[in-house]
Amino acid sequence: MRDVAIIGIGQTKVGEHWDLGLRHLALEALQAAMKDAGVERADALYVGNMLSGELTGQEHLGALIADFAGLRGIEAVKIEAACGSGAAAVRMGYIAVAGGLADVVLVVGVEKMTDYLGPRVTAALAMAADADYEASQGVSFVALNALLMRRYMHEFGYRKEDFAPFAVNAHANGMNNPNAMFHLKVTPESYARAPMIADPVNLLDSSPVCDGAAAVVLAPIEWARQLDHPVVRIAASAIGTDALAIHDRRDPLTLEGAALSAHRAYQQAGLGPKEIDLFELHDAFSIMAALSLEAAGFAEKGKGVRLALDGEITLHGRIPIATMGGLKARGHPVGATGVYQIVEVVQQLRGEAGDNQVPDARIGMAQNIGGSGATVITHILERVG
Amino acid sequence: MRDVAIIGIGQTKVGEHWDLGLRHLALEALQAAMKDAGVERADALYVGNMLSGELTGQEHLGALIADFAGLRGIEAVKIEAACGSGAAAVRMGYIAVAGGLADVVLVVGVEKMTDYLGPRVTAALAMAADADYEASQGVSFVALNALLMRRYMHEFGYRKEDFAPFAVNAHANGMNNPNAMFHLKVTPESYARAPMIADPVNLLDSSPVCDGAAAVVLAPIEWARQLDHPVVRIAASAIGTDALAIHDRRDPLTLEGAALSAHRAYQQAGLGPKEIDLFELHDAFSIMAALSLEAAGFAEKGKGVRLALDGEITLHGRIPIATMGGLKARGHPVGATGVYQIVEVVQQLRGEAGDNQVPDARIGMAQNIGGSGATVITHILERVG
Repeated sequence: MRDVAIIGIGQTKVGEHWDLGLRHLALEALQAAMKDAGVERADALYVGNMLSGELTGQEHLGALIADFAGLRGIEAVKIEAACGSGAAAVRMGYIAVAGGLADVVLVVGVEKMTDYLGPRVTAALAMAADADYEASQGVSFVALNALLMRRYMHEFGYRKEDFAPFAVNAHANGMNNPNAMFHLKVTPESYARAPMIADPVNLLDSSPVCDGAAAVVLAPIEWARQLDHPVVRIAASAIGTDALAIHDRRDPLTLEGAALSAHRAYQQAGLGPKEIDLFELHDAFSIMAALSLEAAGFAEKGKGVRLALDGEITLHGRIPIATMGGLKARGHPVGATGVYQIVEVVQQLRGEAGDNQVPDARIGMAQNIGGSGATVITHILERVG
Repeated sequence: MRDVAIIGIGQTKVGEHWDLGLRHLALEALQAAMKDAGVERADALYVGNMLSGELTGQEHLGALIADFAGLRGIEAVKIEAACGSGAAAVRMGYIAVAGGLADVVLVVGVEKMTDYLGPRVTAALAMAADADYEASQGVSFVALNALLMRRYMHEFGYRKEDFAPFAVNAHANGMNNPNAMFHLKVTPESYARAPMIADPVNLLDSSPVCDGAAAVVLAPIEWARQLDHPVVRIAASAIGTDALAIHDRRDPLTLEGAALSAHRAYQQAGLGPKEIDLFELHDAFSIMAALSLEAAGFAEKGKGVRLALDGEITLHGRIPIATMGGLKARGHPVGATGVYQIVEVVQQLRGEAGDNQVPDARIGMAQNIGGSGATVITHILERVG
């Protein structure tokens, strides 16, 4: 197996891009990543996307985007794993390069959600849950997270306001990210006043519906050494899965898929949570951030919210999370999110994170979650030059 | 790179499975393939599917099917490339095993189309075409094929009835395949009387809307040598792409993506069309069969229909196609089709094709097409023991 590096990164601003279609967003991110990597061709393109069929009437994004990006003819497919589609596509690219079946692989995560606001997007997102046993009962995705959050508060004795630090931290970091959807200061007071969406999940616990695309270029590590950037290698790439329906899991408050995914990644990298300098986690909802911190070994069970209350998730804490705004403030264009996370870890490891730079960041982890924890993709990246 | 073998195959009967959901179909095919291979676990599951979101309100099939098949926890994602999704998933599995990142990989193609018959399926299938520049003009998939067929007849001087041999051959072979949807003898006379769908495409030029699942188990070739079956290795696995919209292509009657895909496969295998003993091609419509034969080098441009008229596509002809009924008679559950094709080539190479056995079949090719030729996946399989 070959060592694989991320030699290029690109992203669009996240937001409501009424003037841009899915293919235009993907193109913008791909072109930026290819320019960053100094490549004009590739062996394959893997596209991460969840909702293009349901929301824009377009499947078959692999060939579509390859052609639109001037790469007609190359191998191209779409990878789908609900909100984990982006990182799952990176994983496929990693497999191809690590195994020696491709040299240069492009990965783009793209989602266009704003053409249909309202109930249709909510229904589309529910396709990440079990259609026959969850969605058919009328449980939306935010409702599932509300049930988890309520149970967590009950089991571990937290109050609603204890979750504020997740929103405060994400939005503080988003302020300095020009590509973030929101530039909005959030305080514990404004968190307490936020409109309720599905009790106890309020507006500031939730990530937004939005559009965006992010891309990376993968290549054998020797390619990276010829570029001007610091070399960032993929030290680990792993997927773990769990039941789609929360009621099918052994314990609703333990993300076993996330724990498995993180465990596999730590094994591959020969590292543990202590060595991780920053963690781009999947804070689609505040409760998911807490459960992810626990599943990945940064906090004991029931202590994820405590870690946040203790200030340990900020840029200068023990484990900085959502360093560029996270899903909450940068935004959560679902199939693109996993690639945004990896792009942001690369920014940190290269020292290109501006005012949000984590000092001396050398090892970063990204964890992208599909559904309420059924598919979890973990990547560990390391600066090696 | 390691040599990869197909060590297990499984399939459901193709048809209208009103009593089975998508997960049940996938399970049946997977269990059959795992039993055939003698494996009870795997490192990863890749699911080929196009329409589950649009037609059954369910995305996130990787984790869903892994869990339902008793494999909770393993790496699992969905691969989508329109009607080429099935073989694209096999390609991803091949990459993982060939590159040494996985030992045993399960691939299942599954589609459940009959929950919504009528316009909704037609609209869903149009998502394989360019939504903004083809489908938005009201061009359905059968209409695109009708335009191609009319142009082909005009350019090369064929009559409508000249296309009959494709339907006659496919249905003759389907008669002996217990898993085929149709067991129906078709004659040139019944072809001439078939109801018109989109002139000149008639009912017997078209593959049916249906449900089905097919699965394969991939492993390093050493595993295959320990089993009772003849050893079938993957001699080539390749994807080629083209523009989604037919009007964007240089020549509408040349499937450049298919030619590229076949060329790459021949290069990998060190073979040419002359060495291929049978060809499971993508006869979603008769015109596609003709264009595929030409793109893969079995006939010169404009001579694909002539090859059929000369009887060369039958079980005893120069290049047998649709040997178990093809998309037309076995059926075309879109995301599953590419896996069915590969399962059937394995049946032929193992000598398990019953009354449809191609004598002394040693090398078989399968070509799965997404859209009207925008994503084309070619596999060449070889019996080596």
